[in-house]
Amino acid sequence: VGLLEEVIAGSPSALARAISVVEDRRDGCRELLSRCHRRERQGFRIGLTGPPGAGKSTLGSRLALAFDKAGDSVGVIAVDPTSPFTGGALLGDRVRMNELSGRTGVFVRSMATRGASGGLAAATADAALVLDAASKRWILIETVGVGQVELDVAETADVVVVVLTPESGDGVQTLKAGLIEVADIFVVNKADRPAADRMHQNLRTTLELRPSGSPEIPIISTVAVSGEGIEELISAIREHKNKLTDPERAKRHRVRMARSHVVRLVEARVKSRLSSADELLETLAQRVARLEIDPYEAADQVIAAGAVDLLSKMRKRKPKAIPAKSDG
Amino acid sequence: VGLLEEVIAGSPSALARAISVVEDRRDGCRELLSRCHRRERQGFRIGLTGPPGAGKSTLGSRLALAFDKAGDSVGVIAVDPTSPFTGGALLGDRVRMNELSGRTGVFVRSMATRGASGGLAAATADAALVLDAASKRWILIETVGVGQVELDVAETADVVVVVLTPESGDGVQTLKAGLIEVADIFVVNKADRPAADRMHQNLRTTLELRPSGSPEIPIISTVAVSGEGIEELISAIREHKNKLTDPERAKRHRVRMARSHVVRLVEARVKSRLSSADELLETLAQRVARLEIDPYEAADQVIAAGAVDLLSKMRKRKPKAIPAKSDG
Repeated sequence: VGLLEEVIAGSPSALARAISVVEDRRDGCRELLSRCHRRERQGFRIGLTGPPGAGKSTLGSRLALAFDKAGDSVGVIAVDPTSPFTGGALLGDRVRMNELSGRTGVFVRSMATRGASGGLAAATADAALVLDAASKRWILIETVGVGQVELDVAETADVVVVVLTPESGDGVQTLKAGLIEVADIFVVNKADRPAADRMHQNLRTTLELRPSGSPEIPIISTVAVSGEGIEELISAIREHKNKLTDPERAKRHRVRMARSHVVRLVEARVKSRLSSADELLETLAQRVARLEIDPYEAADQVIAAGAVDLLSKMRKRKPKAIPAKSDG
Repeated sequence: VGLLEEVIAGSPSALARAISVVEDRRDGCRELLSRCHRRERQGFRIGLTGPPGAGKSTLGSRLALAFDKAGDSVGVIAVDPTSPFTGGALLGDRVRMNELSGRTGVFVRSMATRGASGGLAAATADAALVLDAASKRWILIETVGVGQVELDVAETADVVVVVLTPESGDGVQTLKAGLIEVADIFVVNKADRPAADRMHQNLRTTLELRPSGSPEIPIISTVAVSGEGIEELISAIREHKNKLTDPERAKRHRVRMARSHVVRLVEARVKSRLSSADELLETLAQRVARLEIDPYEAADQVIAAGAVDLLSKMRKRKPKAIPAKSDG
């Protein structure tokens, strides 16, 4: 495929097209990704997550600028929910991000969540593979919100930075949101606000509740708008990256990342199957509403229909998959 | 099954056991639910969702108390994430809820999210069916957080109340979190705080951006700790309930609820299949990490294995399903 060669050669427009092919699952998507996967992984994936309004975009811009100034190329994937009104991505606070696009070394891409959350984590992981092929050294993956899907997206990263503010609530609430399970680094942004010290302390206390031997999670204070603390954050990210150079740890990390990618792909396919089973679902839902069948029988029927369909599709696809494998 | 008869007769301990059977998917779960489903639905499901710290528990307690005082029976399902440290549910702010348990007419149940978010929305919908059988007139479903899973849970309710605070960020951020798509009623809680009016205004402006003809979404100001605004909230809930008595609308609503229940069940089964395919996943992840296969081939193999397995299980289950259907 000429497209991948153009991406590898460094064409930003080819990169944008390649990500679109992947995002929309167009023809050639699978072969493109399969070829990207067989190349050596170059980029280090940084996941930025946290509640809305925590300043993730500003922080992401700061990081991207700092990497760019140091001469490293950067790819940014900003996950945007789709507006229910316009059908388009809500760009609002991405404007600042777009300023970055002017810089040659920084490639910014918004991805819409498209209401259905199915394939988001899978699509993000796929897009990161394409950015790898484009030799981006740092890949920033920025999510909106702190729900399960956002955590799934964050988990496709090599390091997960959870961004909070002094107003983000106490440690127990942080725990609740499942953030401590995914965080490699905490950032208390807007650290010039009065409650910042208390938040920092609160987080530290909460982290101390973990069993001894739990991995250390640094807590960095930043003021993203002024750039305060960005250097410390970059140091913490580099330190995490260095830890992963240990061969045994690197191997385990690669397996874990591969596993989460496969799980996300399977979930994404099931979701896409469900949305294409619209007619069957509607018929079954009507029968359930009329109490003719119960929801459990309906679910059985959906799964049976899907399984038959998937198996027959897979049998058809088999002969195609083999030559694709042998050209690597 | 004697258990369901005890639930119908009003035994709280039988109700607790029945929900455990459903939550843990124990033997007899499916038959129990199938029989619950064939009974007339009695309870009106109120979903309470919103960011952590918005005061959903306090608001839920207030609502439950008010319904109880009016002589109506209430069931509360509080969805709690599991602590990664203790493996148990984080009860923290549920203490207030537990005080309610002393009241005969109010049944409170915490459900753990168990890390994996798979079956949560399905389990909640199932538990609500059991509360229906126990003749609960109002079923409160309270979630933590505002991610996709929480929105899925909220969608199993007849009316979705989104609880915000004056500090919840501006309208655009609310939009982003996908809340406007699921909200039937907005609550600005902690309305005695300075920024409350601005938040209220901001929400109103954001709602006005929707296309004309969009359903009206009331915005109620409350101070849950003092009980201020609870009556207005209950009026708004009753008004929403009345709208659903229109036969045509009621029918569409029933079909939509049935459909979302079926979709959640299918998703839950796929998730549980994935977690039981642990060995296969690990083997495939290792091969992916060694670049022997790509993640897309691995996903194919997981799906193929699952589909074969599901189909063979379903063939075995068929003869059982038929007698269960004929006794209704």
